[in-house]
Amino acid sequence: MKQPEDIVGGGPTSPLAFRQAVGSSPQARANPIRLPPGISAEVFQTFTQRAAAICGDENVVIISNSDELNHESYLDPSKCHDMYHVLEDDYFISSAVITPRGVPDVQDMMRLCNEFSVPVWPFSIGRNVGYGGAAPRVPGSIGLDLGKHMNKVLDINVDGAFALLEPGITFLDLHEHLVKNNLRDKLWVDVPDLGGGSVIGNTIERGVGYTPYGDHWMMHCGMEVVLPDGSLIRTGMGALPNPKADPSRPPHEQDACETWQLFNYGFGPYNDGIFSQSSLGIVVKMGIWLMANPGGYQSYLITFPKDEDLHQILEVIRPLRVGMVLQNVPTLRHVLLDAAVHGNKKSYTDSTKPLTDVEIDEIAKKIGLGRWNLHGALYGPAPIRDAMWGVVKQSFSSIPGAKFYFPEDMPDNLVLQTRHLTLQGIPSTTELKWVDWLDNGAHLFFSPISKVSGDDGVAQYKMTRTRCEEFGFDFIGTFVVGMREMHHIVCLVFDRKDPDSRRRAHKLIATLIDDGAKNGWGEYRTHLAYMDQIAATYNFNDNAQMKLNEKIKNALDPKGILAPGKNGVWPKTFDAESFKVPFQ
Amino acid sequence: MKQPEDIVGGGPTSPLAFRQAVGSSPQARANPIRLPPGISAEVFQTFTQRAAAICGDENVVIISNSDELNHESYLDPSKCHDMYHVLEDDYFISSAVITPRGVPDVQDMMRLCNEFSVPVWPFSIGRNVGYGGAAPRVPGSIGLDLGKHMNKVLDINVDGAFALLEPGITFLDLHEHLVKNNLRDKLWVDVPDLGGGSVIGNTIERGVGYTPYGDHWMMHCGMEVVLPDGSLIRTGMGALPNPKADPSRPPHEQDACETWQLFNYGFGPYNDGIFSQSSLGIVVKMGIWLMANPGGYQSYLITFPKDEDLHQILEVIRPLRVGMVLQNVPTLRHVLLDAAVHGNKKSYTDSTKPLTDVEIDEIAKKIGLGRWNLHGALYGPAPIRDAMWGVVKQSFSSIPGAKFYFPEDMPDNLVLQTRHLTLQGIPSTTELKWVDWLDNGAHLFFSPISKVSGDDGVAQYKMTRTRCEEFGFDFIGTFVVGMREMHHIVCLVFDRKDPDSRRRAHKLIATLIDDGAKNGWGEYRTHLAYMDQIAATYNFNDNAQMKLNEKIKNALDPKGILAPGKNGVWPKTFDAESFKVPFQ
Repeated sequence: MKQPEDIVGGGPTSPLAFRQAVGSSPQARANPIRLPPGISAEVFQTFTQRAAAICGDENVVIISNSDELNHESYLDPSKCHDMYHVLEDDYFISSAVITPRGVPDVQDMMRLCNEFSVPVWPFSIGRNVGYGGAAPRVPGSIGLDLGKHMNKVLDINVDGAFALLEPGITFLDLHEHLVKNNLRDKLWVDVPDLGGGSVIGNTIERGVGYTPYGDHWMMHCGMEVVLPDGSLIRTGMGALPNPKADPSRPPHEQDACETWQLFNYGFGPYNDGIFSQSSLGIVVKMGIWLMANPGGYQSYLITFPKDEDLHQILEVIRPLRVGMVLQNVPTLRHVLLDAAVHGNKKSYTDSTKPLTDVEIDEIAKKIGLGRWNLHGALYGPAPIRDAMWGVVKQSFSSIPGAKFYFPEDMPDNLVLQTRHLTLQGIPSTTELKWVDWLDNGAHLFFSPISKVSGDDGVAQYKMTRTRCEEFGFDFIGTFVVGMREMHHIVCLVFDRKDPDSRRRAHKLIATLIDDGAKNGWGEYRTHLAYMDQIAATYNFNDNAQMKLNEKIKNALDPKGILAPGKNGVWPKTFDAESFKVPFQ
Repeated sequence: MKQPEDIVGGGPTSPLAFRQAVGSSPQARANPIRLPPGISAEVFQTFTQRAAAICGDENVVIISNSDELNHESYLDPSKCHDMYHVLEDDYFISSAVITPRGVPDVQDMMRLCNEFSVPVWPFSIGRNVGYGGAAPRVPGSIGLDLGKHMNKVLDINVDGAFALLEPGITFLDLHEHLVKNNLRDKLWVDVPDLGGGSVIGNTIERGVGYTPYGDHWMMHCGMEVVLPDGSLIRTGMGALPNPKADPSRPPHEQDACETWQLFNYGFGPYNDGIFSQSSLGIVVKMGIWLMANPGGYQSYLITFPKDEDLHQILEVIRPLRVGMVLQNVPTLRHVLLDAAVHGNKKSYTDSTKPLTDVEIDEIAKKIGLGRWNLHGALYGPAPIRDAMWGVVKQSFSSIPGAKFYFPEDMPDNLVLQTRHLTLQGIPSTTELKWVDWLDNGAHLFFSPISKVSGDDGVAQYKMTRTRCEEFGFDFIGTFVVGMREMHHIVCLVFDRKDPDSRRRAHKLIATLIDDGAKNGWGEYRTHLAYMDQIAATYNFNDNAQMKLNEKIKNALDPKGILAPGKNGVWPKTFDAESFKVPFQ
């Protein structure tokens, strides 16, 4: 077990029946270890010894809340705290990170956490970096690192076009696995902007990609889940045993029925959804549908010169997308998002203020893009692509100044070349570069769901850009067009080493959430710091949905040990008020 | 309140804490009213008076288990018992049918049922006739008829291509609504084989249709649900209030946020699935995505001459469907299904035995079809349809004797003409005719989920046909090909007035369920009589899924009043054993 030598008492032990945030008080934070709330140093030591007995000494790492962390020399800091911290970097931090070696370790850890009433925060890879990374909502929780040892592609089925995965498999891993096995000509993975994240993690957080399979949650099929009490279920057809399964093997190793990854719903209540964006179970295996090679592919970029083109662009997109002429999940990107991939702010200007329209136009000209830039793709054999492209080109040509490009027209456009890969399911990490727009760049997302309409898009753009500039930031954003709506993703880049920059970013997001709710816009996902605030906006009929969520939470996890506070769902054993995120 | 004059005691009142099936004992069945289990005639009378005070006298109908029912002259028998009863027709029967006038009535009824511990079985239209119709699982339950008064199309949104519906809207209603409002040229409904069922009912039971929008559950978006305690939630984005909503209106009448029907998942746990095929809530409003007019349509029929073609047909279908060249949900129908729509068994033969291969071939020849017949469709403008058709035709031409037809080639083929409508979302009830294959025809389905593979299809066909013939029935069936799997639907027609025919049918289905489980095949949906048996086959890891279902059920419905026994989920307040379905 790796641990600092200086474990000392972590403040008074509060009654386990009702947990308060003693662990995050300034007094507690002065201690070298952020203990779980209500857990004394002595109990914690016993707990970690027991954990080591389950997972092995080498798989229990005690996290020291010391200078090391602040100086970023800490062993893999992304696994215990929020890399892109908008609060102080030791706020959302684990007391220990434990890496189970397999499903039975996860089950035993849940039983142990119940026995000790220790909160536990599972993560797969910890790379949802704009939303808190691997850090827990409750300071001092145990981080449960699923991805490190549970990192196998368990099955690739060509006939059924699916994969069965463990949490440690990233989009990059899965793609490389296909390439290595000469399957890439048959099957494509849908990938998000950055390929380094866990397929399971991204999917259960309801992340999106950009091929016709962009709605990852829709395309998952069948899960194996450890419940808060340590029991193990398989969802959908997975609940039907394979008659050929070896009954002498433990359940998690038994062959599943052959339709587990072919049909989502099984028989009776369809439970999968309650394990997404939730704290009700730990997904240890998941099936995901792969896209059959469509027999042809052509990505494209359409640029639009003027800021005010936004309205018309969205009005053109809507019927094309609903009619599936836009076959994939297209993205309409503000020029600064592309600009930030090509270079940092300093490379374009000496200004430290939000860029003016004139300055933005200069940048657009310099990199040869429009104010708004639409990345899409055509799939299928040439006659089908040609038919689709004819409609697409004609439709967008109604917007004066629209220009149409294929990747070969812009060999030096890093974004277009990257999107050309992304939209055919080849993952990369190139686009992470936009985080370097500012020095010590970190990012947060504000991600409201919107109608696909000119009026709504323009209203959201105006509101978010005005607020960004009011708080001293550039607007960097993109509209990601799903089946019937847009995820409007505002990418807020701030300087994580500048307390003022962090404070402004923090306040900006909080303000935008309230602004959004006043307009009837809600977010689909958020950083740890805003979970309570956003959950509180989903308050129809006296918070009826949250009351349901809490009822289910308390039934499945009576001690409230699994990811308490996740997306605003607080178990009855936690005093939510005392865990409120501080404004600095 | 409509009621017979002779309510008398319905057997001893058992402790309400643990309900046993006194209501279904032969003694109880001799009574004119099948009282709810554990409820005395006196308590029942008080309950119905209270119900009348909630919903109005005219909306409470006491069901007399009398001769009238047996003689089928009873007022709308489909609303209180199982029309196509495989048990005696007074086994699955309600004590009363109550028709709420709106959401508040539903809420108040749930509160009343909780107060009196009376089980309640909600239905929308009651037309899932092969699965029990409107009849309750627990004899003597209250039937809650949602569709009679709650029957409005609340919204049709052309831009967003969705409808918001109440439970009483059938597929026929919705289609006619589009036609009446001149919207049919813009929007199509996906419809199942028979258009008379509720869109909500079909969708939450996870029924399918045959256009590219065939997976109804996948295409639903946003629900309003009354929970067992009478509280009201809106799921997904519906939990986010519309800032313009009038706070003086009751919650169910308040305008929802505009993205309720555009984005399914909302924020936090995605709860919708637990309200499908379940007993956890009553869906009183639901959004469903409509298909944009694809700009072109061509249905087709491909016939295959030989029984043994099945293997190769399925092997051809699989990659075409996974690759979306087969754009819709195609069906591969056994010739007798089409034959039964064209005429009853007597019209083809004097034999009362299962038809031999020679006889089946004669019938196929007579109606100009193959042994297997594939109904599909192409969607989109001509260049796209042409490209798809080229691949489809070439692929199936590898099967000797395959013949290709468009509807105009067979103007007298009733099935092809009907499928031509169905596959473009125009509902009908024509195909109900196959139930008349036998006199007093009733039907049951055996519906296993299968891999799309020649081996699996042939094995299922052999197993089910052999068993059908063993029990004296013809095999009538169809393979319905979804995204990655087939719903193999075996349509068992029996004579409901012939006790021997019913007994054989009952035993046949029960046998097939066991046969299926032994092969790793599970059913996606079933008749009331087989819910327990099928649920018991989904028993991975010591029934872990059922334990989860029960935990959630008991948390949300502690008195177990909502649809106890639905799909095998028995609340802790019910003695499942005593409700076991009898074999006659």
